Amino acid sequence: MRVLHHHPLYGASRTVRLLLAERRLVHLPKLESPWDRHEDFLTLNPSGDVPVLVTEDGDVLCGTMVIAEYLEETEPGEGRLIWGTAAERAEIRRLTDWFERKFVVEVGAPLLNERYLKRVTARGNPSSEVMRAAMTNLHIHLDYIDWLAEQGNWLAGKAMSLADLSAAAHLSVTDYFGDIDWDRHPEARLWYAKIKSRPSFRDLLEDVVAGLAPSQHYTNLDF
Amino acid sequence: MRVLHHHPLYGASRTVRLLLAERRLVHLPKLESPWDRHEDFLTLNPSGDVPVLVTEDGDVLCGTMVIAEYLEETEPGEGRLIWGTAAERAEIRRLTDWFERKFVVEVGAPLLNERYLKRVTARGNPSSEVMRAAMTNLHIHLDYIDWLAEQGNWLAGKAMSLADLSAAAHLSVTDYFGDIDWDRHPEARLWYAKIKSRPSFRDLLEDVVAGLAPSQHYTNLDF
Repeated sequence: MRVLHHHPLYGASRTVRLLLAERRLVHLPKLESPWDRHEDFLTLNPSGDVPVLVTEDGDVLCGTMVIAEYLEETEPGEGRLIWGTAAERAEIRRLTDWFERKFVVEVGAPLLNERYLKRVTARGNPSSEVMRAAMTNLHIHLDYIDWLAEQGNWLAGKAMSLADLSAAAHLSVTDYFGDIDWDRHPEARLWYAKIKSRPSFRDLLEDVVAGLAPSQHYTNLDF
Repeated sequence: MRVLHHHPLYGASRTVRLLLAERRLVHLPKLESPWDRHEDFLTLNPSGDVPVLVTEDGDVLCGTMVIAEYLEETEPGEGRLIWGTAAERAEIRRLTDWFERKFVVEVGAPLLNERYLKRVTARGNPSSEVMRAAMTNLHIHLDYIDWLAEQGNWLAGKAMSLADLSAAAHLSVTDYFGDIDWDRHPEARLWYAKIKSRPSFRDLLEDVVAGLAPSQHYTNLDF
């Protein structure tokens, strides 16, 4: 069976869990702590990042887009997540890259570091300056989601795509921390509620990380 | 004609220039200074990053992988740069992502910021601490290229691919600054010399940025 190396607080590995669930591709999850930099895991992926998907054929796929493009190519049929014309596919990829890269650098990685990694690796206290900058960036990203969600049902157009899964995956970690003020972002909230109630999302809502309880509304579908 | 918004010191836009030249797809270059955040350019690409390719049909393509996947889909024929089986294509994408993301974060962006952006935006003096960390990271990346180049003719296997163009594009900016000690990386040097002598590379070697001369060996094919 496919094996997915992941960590519940790494947004990119949540994107791939949603993708696999939406495509009904079963997998065996394997918890990885990227900050430990285990020798075995580095042999699999020299960058040391999750997610890594090992296929039944033994192909080792590292990173969200590598995994997504591979599955698009090898798993035809219903429920494609990079769909449409070349231009529509470009828009799905642009927005996915936005969340997998820009959101991670500006919001996801600093919040993860200050709220969790510094503690588990005993690297000192959270920096309020870094947190404040990340929270300011978070509102800018949520404003953008408000705007995108207002244009259509889904972020990249008329149907759900990888862009929605990626955005929701990364936001769900921020929401686990309790850092999102949903009252300020009504359109983003409506869109997120729609994704959050999908069967594919249930697995994410059951995540509990030792020593760090999720926010009170994390599992609430009517938040 | 296609228009490419680019800046000569932004590695990602060099990757796309190489890609277009290798595929013999003509384009009109348009110089963009991403740090100025021009309103017109932000309308085209809300992230404010280069490269952006505007096609003859008016499709707006933002970012290396979005552009590369679009051109793979719409420009069939000779010289494909994401080639092979699904597993081979995954490896090309993994390595391209390595240079477009990991190299940029660990080496490219800090060196660009300290060596150039701080000066043009009058944001103070270069930090020797940041430069030292980036230079340490640079050697680790060059060690990895040494190792990859030793395995085969090209970084992702038996033929040239997008991964080679991406690695060479980002390294070429570092080489413009004169930051690469090629004597320490003989395999990487052999591989880079091979790419540097390709016709597609000539355009990059003619780049001159106002107020910042390239290193002495930058244009030298026998460096």
